[in-house]
Amino acid sequence: MSTPLTNTTGEEIISRPEESQQSIIKKPERTYMNKSRNSRPPRSMVGPKFDTTVSTKRETDHLPPLKDGDIRIIHLGGVEEIGRNMSMIEYKDSIVIVDCGVQFTETNTPGIDFILPNTRYLEEHKHKIKAVLVTHGHLDHIGAIPYIMPRIGNPQIYARLFTSLMIKKRQEEFPHLSPLTINVVERGDTVTLGDLKVRFFGVTHAIPDSMGIIIETPYGDIVHTGDLRLEHNDGIPTDDEVDRYKTFENRNTLLLMADSTNCENPGFSISDAVVYRNIEAIIRDTPGRLIISTFASQVERMLFMLETAERYGKKVIIEGRSMKTNVEISKLANMLKVKPETLIPSEDMVRYPENKLIILATGQQGEEFAALGRIASKTHKFVRLTPRDTILMSSSVVPGNERAVQNLKDKLSRQGAHLIHYKTSDVHSSGHANADELLWIHRKIHPKFFIPVHGYHYMLRVHADLERKLGMLEENIVIPDNGMLIEIREGGTKIISLKEKAPGEMIVVDGTSVGKIQDVVMRDRQTLAEDGMFVVIGVIDSHTHQLKKSPDLISRGFVYLKESQDLLYQTRLLTKKVIDDSLARGGYSNLDQMKQDIAEATTKFLLQKTAKRPVIIPVIISV
Amino acid sequence: MSTPLTNTTGEEIISRPEESQQSIIKKPERTYMNKSRNSRPPRSMVGPKFDTTVSTKRETDHLPPLKDGDIRIIHLGGVEEIGRNMSMIEYKDSIVIVDCGVQFTETNTPGIDFILPNTRYLEEHKHKIKAVLVTHGHLDHIGAIPYIMPRIGNPQIYARLFTSLMIKKRQEEFPHLSPLTINVVERGDTVTLGDLKVRFFGVTHAIPDSMGIIIETPYGDIVHTGDLRLEHNDGIPTDDEVDRYKTFENRNTLLLMADSTNCENPGFSISDAVVYRNIEAIIRDTPGRLIISTFASQVERMLFMLETAERYGKKVIIEGRSMKTNVEISKLANMLKVKPETLIPSEDMVRYPENKLIILATGQQGEEFAALGRIASKTHKFVRLTPRDTILMSSSVVPGNERAVQNLKDKLSRQGAHLIHYKTSDVHSSGHANADELLWIHRKIHPKFFIPVHGYHYMLRVHADLERKLGMLEENIVIPDNGMLIEIREGGTKIISLKEKAPGEMIVVDGTSVGKIQDVVMRDRQTLAEDGMFVVIGVIDSHTHQLKKSPDLISRGFVYLKESQDLLYQTRLLTKKVIDDSLARGGYSNLDQMKQDIAEATTKFLLQKTAKRPVIIPVIISV
Repeated sequence: MSTPLTNTTGEEIISRPEESQQSIIKKPERTYMNKSRNSRPPRSMVGPKFDTTVSTKRETDHLPPLKDGDIRIIHLGGVEEIGRNMSMIEYKDSIVIVDCGVQFTETNTPGIDFILPNTRYLEEHKHKIKAVLVTHGHLDHIGAIPYIMPRIGNPQIYARLFTSLMIKKRQEEFPHLSPLTINVVERGDTVTLGDLKVRFFGVTHAIPDSMGIIIETPYGDIVHTGDLRLEHNDGIPTDDEVDRYKTFENRNTLLLMADSTNCENPGFSISDAVVYRNIEAIIRDTPGRLIISTFASQVERMLFMLETAERYGKKVIIEGRSMKTNVEISKLANMLKVKPETLIPSEDMVRYPENKLIILATGQQGEEFAALGRIASKTHKFVRLTPRDTILMSSSVVPGNERAVQNLKDKLSRQGAHLIHYKTSDVHSSGHANADELLWIHRKIHPKFFIPVHGYHYMLRVHADLERKLGMLEENIVIPDNGMLIEIREGGTKIISLKEKAPGEMIVVDGTSVGKIQDVVMRDRQTLAEDGMFVVIGVIDSHTHQLKKSPDLISRGFVYLKESQDLLYQTRLLTKKVIDDSLARGGYSNLDQMKQDIAEATTKFLLQKTAKRPVIIPVIISV
Repeated sequence: MSTPLTNTTGEEIISRPEESQQSIIKKPERTYMNKSRNSRPPRSMVGPKFDTTVSTKRETDHLPPLKDGDIRIIHLGGVEEIGRNMSMIEYKDSIVIVDCGVQFTETNTPGIDFILPNTRYLEEHKHKIKAVLVTHGHLDHIGAIPYIMPRIGNPQIYARLFTSLMIKKRQEEFPHLSPLTINVVERGDTVTLGDLKVRFFGVTHAIPDSMGIIIETPYGDIVHTGDLRLEHNDGIPTDDEVDRYKTFENRNTLLLMADSTNCENPGFSISDAVVYRNIEAIIRDTPGRLIISTFASQVERMLFMLETAERYGKKVIIEGRSMKTNVEISKLANMLKVKPETLIPSEDMVRYPENKLIILATGQQGEEFAALGRIASKTHKFVRLTPRDTILMSSSVVPGNERAVQNLKDKLSRQGAHLIHYKTSDVHSSGHANADELLWIHRKIHPKFFIPVHGYHYMLRVHADLERKLGMLEENIVIPDNGMLIEIREGGTKIISLKEKAPGEMIVVDGTSVGKIQDVVMRDRQTLAEDGMFVVIGVIDSHTHQLKKSPDLISRGFVYLKESQDLLYQTRLLTKKVIDDSLARGGYSNLDQMKQDIAEATTKFLLQKTAKRPVIIPVIISV
């Protein structure tokens, strides 16, 4: 087991270390959910360590070397999707990295746990890496740290306090990994990292201590906003916002990379002030018990809810692991302002009148086994709904979860509870800026070059159009792809994208396995999901070259067997005939051909009879 | 093969008739798409006839008989989902049915083609059925006709002209079925159907000849709106709308059943006038080639687009089967007002300058193999995008399709084409009324009782709340479930729902099979989709009771086998040990137990090693 194996291309594969049967990986709750996964219990508490070994075959040697004085920028993820955000800036002998996030799923990756940025380029240039700068503590910005840090030499991490606590908390779930070195920084701090000097500035997002990054180069500043929005009153940014963007006054900004998530939405987003006012009114005026569900990632809003609940003399029960974790972290960061007695355990609920109770629950995306899901399906240990209950869903629906959320609302309302959600009133606002906010930010930062980031390709295009509206020339904008080599050349006067690309295949976490996505496995899963499978087993006598008996058939997920006896009988006859015919033609000498004949004939027959095309697995056993 | 079989519960199953290998079923394009299906080619041109036989076991004998003078209403589908709309009204010896639609998919039905209303109650009361009244030609109202009509005695159908043509067109795809009898009616017509008299009134929806139904009873009218909205100017319904609702003046409306789809949206929907104005401006002003994609079901808008194109001297190419079909049907219905030369075949595109060309294409929901999908992936036979092209997506995103639509937009914009969609301007409006439209309609119809229909449960609740706002008493409203027996009793003074329910299990079309949903098959497909499968085959000598060789392992959709040799090796050792141990304990006499042991041990081991839980299939062959 510890002997090196050789794979089909002849390179050496380092076998994974012995795995302890005791080690446990807990998976974080998903925000971008896999729909089919939703119907099954979460798979936490299972599985050993994942594989951290790295293939030794070099994949970046064909790329042109970076010329002295030029700046290279590569987005390893996050610019063809929402998620797995990771960017790198390379100058002389230094690389600094911004963020290291996961993506949760894509339509064409059934069964996959996470998608990671492809960090092959970094792995092969790790001697240059000076730091990973983390803008904020959301999983699409920190989630890949446990998987990727071991592969890139475990460099120094720089983050603000709350972010650092989020990273540490997540790392606890991976006890076998080397410890991280996290340097806690504050906005305004300056750090020298090899050939580059880096500063940080505060931004408004949904989680405390969000920051943007300014990388000083000889040609001007490179600014990466991280995720951000503006706090404002009816479209007028607050004084705080105006203040924090003063840092860009009289500066020469070479390049801006900015959050594109909501650039398709016109105007300004709903301000937090409005959302908070509405939530406060609901907490104050709800006559019975109030169940509030929000994204666990909306930490600032959660803190506001706790403080407001206390102000109106309510007790709060926290339900759901990610929510509890974030309360804990807020406490560690000294951001939790409520008295300890405001938070009560679930079992104490019975001791208070309904109108004094607020339950803060995870699961607004329809996750079946999250707190709200269990409440909806009447399997929650402490909470049973009544028509006196009010449920506030302070969240939007993450694309892909519409059906699951509809199902959740149906189940909740069926029990008579009154629902309040973002369609009925302004009780949620995204953490990402709308178009007019972005325009305001762009004007303040006034960059020479622009790269839209954080979004699907079309979002980046729309964001680029916004910048063009402000008068930026076409040639000063690069719309990136994952792995695209972007360079600033000729003394900072020119930005170009190279035709060569850094390795960009999807890297996936599939159970304990971490590696390039295997299209064949994904395709099989998709077919299995639609049409199931069908195994044909023929046992052949190696002396007589005859079938020992009629073939055995096994199927799962295909048709309901109890009602398909006739079909099975016919299929058995058919496969028997195919094998007999093959044997009569001397097919025993070419069993692969025989299997192929069985697969073809069976596929055709079943398609004809059932209009379904299951995965056919022919097995020939020679005894 | 034609011998009757007996299934496990002992009842007789009538074997299906011999199937001709030539018969072909074409599947309609989907509007509510199955996500994973989206990644595979459509399965049209395959498969034989579906099974139209019906089990003879009665399932409704336990229901209380309908008392003379009472009215019974059952929704066979459409009130716990969007889709498979079908309602029935029973009075004395007469049943009239409203609509007969399909639903396309649900999250928990992977691989399923359609979901049908459960018509068991109708099948067992078919002697009473007088007619199927069809409100309009959308598939969620007509799509189940081919599947259900043979089961309920092929009753008379009543529909307006356009609807009748849509039904006939669909029926052509099922040539083995008995012909339908369709009576073409007009709004204002009155038809006597057994003990009931029925009238029809026109409503505004998205497809020509939409109508609502008025069923006259001794206690007042039962009104079923079908799908509807209001045409209006800034929230003032047009004179046409005011006129058509005059039919309810001075009438005694006993019961209203109305469309709940968009009741969660406040105010009035965007009026078609606004949408048409914007579309006209885009057709007029687009400098290059214009590709327009809209729901094929938006027939009225499509007709407007054709007329507008002609008015501005453009030629139109129709791309996509459902769009072509609807143009054909419009021609048959005398609703196509454009000259024949305005429509040109794809291959003639090259003969016209770009700014004279409009391509009307299906596929705005991201369907990979629809016209727009092929254009996006550069596999369309005639259309290659350039940055001079404009694409107008005159549609919204159907819940569940968000990822597929994002992918489509990414691919289209990557080729430089300019996109216009409902987020950027008012180029789409739904065919369903918003809350204030519904309030206006309710006031005009002023019913005594109310049953919200056409929607998920939560939508029905919100719709009921609307009616309560108008002053209706709680006890006069019934929020239905599929199969719920609702009765109007005591001379039309009382509406109640019975505790007994008509059979309501999901009936699904899965390839050629039509029947109750098989949870075990669905569960297997879900597991197969996530984690794949793993077959363990042991061959045992029936004389020596020993394994003849180490077990064979086959897996698909689980892990990438080339990179998992070590895992396979360990699994093989494990399964060999389990079988050997079992045999040593005399396990040969209980192979089922042995299989269970293999399944348990292998599941546990693979979960430990890979954190995945594939479907394990143990096979023991004794030779």
